[in-house]
Amino acid sequence: MKAAPLALTMGDPAGIGPELTGRVWQALRDTGCVFFWIGDPTLLGEAIVWQEITHPAEARACFAHALPVQRVSCPEVVQPGKPSPQNAPAVIESIKQAVHYSLAGQAGAVVTNPIAKHVLAAAGFPHPGHTEFLASLCKASGQEVMMLACPELKVALTSIHVSLQQAIKCLSAERIVEVSKITAKALKRDFGLTNPRLAIAGLNPHAGEHGMMGDEEVRIIRPAIEVLTKEGINVIGPMPPDTMFSAAVRSHYDAAICLYHDQGLIPVKTLDMAGGVNITLGLPIIRTSPDHGTAFDIAVGRGGKSRADCSSLLSAMRMAHDMAHQRAVTESHCK
Amino acid sequence: MKAAPLALTMGDPAGIGPELTGRVWQALRDTGCVFFWIGDPTLLGEAIVWQEITHPAEARACFAHALPVQRVSCPEVVQPGKPSPQNAPAVIESIKQAVHYSLAGQAGAVVTNPIAKHVLAAAGFPHPGHTEFLASLCKASGQEVMMLACPELKVALTSIHVSLQQAIKCLSAERIVEVSKITAKALKRDFGLTNPRLAIAGLNPHAGEHGMMGDEEVRIIRPAIEVLTKEGINVIGPMPPDTMFSAAVRSHYDAAICLYHDQGLIPVKTLDMAGGVNITLGLPIIRTSPDHGTAFDIAVGRGGKSRADCSSLLSAMRMAHDMAHQRAVTESHCK
Repeated sequence: MKAAPLALTMGDPAGIGPELTGRVWQALRDTGCVFFWIGDPTLLGEAIVWQEITHPAEARACFAHALPVQRVSCPEVVQPGKPSPQNAPAVIESIKQAVHYSLAGQAGAVVTNPIAKHVLAAAGFPHPGHTEFLASLCKASGQEVMMLACPELKVALTSIHVSLQQAIKCLSAERIVEVSKITAKALKRDFGLTNPRLAIAGLNPHAGEHGMMGDEEVRIIRPAIEVLTKEGINVIGPMPPDTMFSAAVRSHYDAAICLYHDQGLIPVKTLDMAGGVNITLGLPIIRTSPDHGTAFDIAVGRGGKSRADCSSLLSAMRMAHDMAHQRAVTESHCK
Repeated sequence: MKAAPLALTMGDPAGIGPELTGRVWQALRDTGCVFFWIGDPTLLGEAIVWQEITHPAEARACFAHALPVQRVSCPEVVQPGKPSPQNAPAVIESIKQAVHYSLAGQAGAVVTNPIAKHVLAAAGFPHPGHTEFLASLCKASGQEVMMLACPELKVALTSIHVSLQQAIKCLSAERIVEVSKITAKALKRDFGLTNPRLAIAGLNPHAGEHGMMGDEEVRIIRPAIEVLTKEGINVIGPMPPDTMFSAAVRSHYDAAICLYHDQGLIPVKTLDMAGGVNITLGLPIIRTSPDHGTAFDIAVGRGGKSRADCSSLLSAMRMAHDMAHQRAVTESHCK
C-alpha cells in the first residue's frame, strides 16, 4: 500500500528552507519517501533538477530524477537572510495548498519548512504561529497538541509557548485528559501501536512526594489519571520528572505527557539535538516539521554553499512518510 | 601530593549502604582512592575483610588488604529493609565524625551513604536532610548549593526540594549571584579550572523571547548576569533551557546554573542515570554522595547477594578523591 506523496511547504523564502529542500530531495530521491515542494523554483540551487507539476499525483513519476514543484511564486526578489513581508502571501498560499491537498487525501501529510512569525505578522497574518494556522485551516482550533519525537523518546505537551508561571496556572485535569487521549489515538492510528502506554509526568520535584513539595499531583494529575484509566487508556504516573527520561524508565512507555515546554523539550534535545521532529497531533491531517527556525543568519540562497544541517527536515520527512503509511494501513483495516 | 583519605559514612544500616560499601572497597582497593568507613562492621558482607582503625591516618596502610573501619556500633540488631529509629543516633554519630575529620583536615572529603529522613525525624533529628545537617555541623547554614554532576554535565541549582511554584516565587537575582559565585569558586578550587565558564539557564520557554513568554529573564536573570559580569565572573545567559544541554551547547560552559530542581536534574539523569554524583558546594569541606536513596526494598544485608548498583557510590568516591586532590594542589599553590 502506498500513501500519497508528502506536501512540503516553502517556508520563508529568505530562510534555509529552499536550500534544505533541494538537499533533502537529493537524499530521498532513490527512496520510497516521495514528496513535492510547494514553492518558487527560482529559489532552488543550480544543482537541483526540478520539474513543475500541477497536481500531487504527478509527483511520483518524476521524483527519482527531478524534484516535483507545485509552483507558488514570490512577487519580490528574494535576498537570502533578508525576509520581506511582500512575500508573506506566497508563504501563506504554500501552507494553504499543502493543507488543501492533505485534507483531500491527495497528499499523505504536510511537512512545513520554517516560517518567521514576525514577518508574517507584519503582513497582517493573525495567527500566533504555524500550528494555530494549520488548526484553523483544518477547522480544529484548540485541539492541536505538540509532540516532539526523536528515536529514543516521544513527548506530548499540555502547554507550549507560555511562561512557566502560566503553564502551571493553566494546568487542569481536563487538559491532561484531552492531551493524553489525542496522543493515545495518534499512537494507534499513525504509529501502529495497538495498546499505547502513556507516562504522565509530575509537575514538582519527585512528583511532589505525597504533597510535601506541591499539591498539583494530588489535586490535578492523579484525578486525570483516574479518568484515563477508567476510559481504558494505559497510563502510568505521576512520574518523578527527573528520572522518567532515563533509558531504563523510557522502556516502560511509548510517549510521555509533559506539563510544560521545557519538561518535554529538555530531554528530547539533550538526547538528540539535530534529529528531533515536531509533530502536530489532534488535526485531521498529519503534520510534521523540523525542529529549528528559518536560520536567516546562515541562509545562502541558490548561489551559495549551504552550511545548514538538513538532518531535522530529513527526519521530519521520514517521520511523516512512516506516519502516512501507517495511517493508510490502519484505516484500510478499519474499513 | 596525596590528599587525606576519604570518610564514608554508614548511612541507614538497614539500607543498601553497607553492602555498597563493601563492593566499592573491592573496586577501589588497588587504586589510590583510599577511604575509611565510619560504621558498624558487623553489617559488612562475609566476603569483606575489614580492619578497625582509631584514626584516619591508619587507613592508607591497610587499605589494599582490608577495608578500614572506624567503629560506630548500632545498638539494635539491624534487619535489612527494616529501618529502626533506635539506630538513628549511630547514623548521626557517623556523619558527625566524618565532618569532624574533614574540618580537621584528617579526611579529604565526606562521602555520605543514603539516610532515610523519616527514620531520623522519628528519632528527633531536626534537619530536613543530610545537606542541612552538614551545613549546620560546618556552621555554614544557608550557603549550601546542590550540584549534580556526570561526566558530560555539571548543574548547580538555585533551589532544591520545593514545589515548582515555590521555586519560581523564591527566584531572585541575589540567589542567582550567590549560587553562581559559590559554583565558580568550587570550579576553581576543587576542579582546577582557572577561568570557569558558567551558563545561566532561562526560566521560561526560549528564555522568554524578550519578555513575550514570562519576564523573569528581564527582571531577575539579566540583572544577575550583569552583577556577575561586573565582578569578573565568566558567565553567559539567560540560555534557552531546552537547547542548552545538547552536546554542542555544553561545550561552551563548565557548569549550568539551573533555576529549579528538574531543569537541572532532567538533563543529568537523561544523560547518565547510574553515574550521577551529588556534590554539596558552599561548605568548608568537600562532600559528595550517590544519587539514590536507601533502597530498603532491595537491601539484603550481610548474608545476601546484593542486587544494588554501586556505580553511583563509586562515582561519588572517585569524584570526592579527585576534588580533594585538586583542592590540595590549589591550596599549595596559594600558600
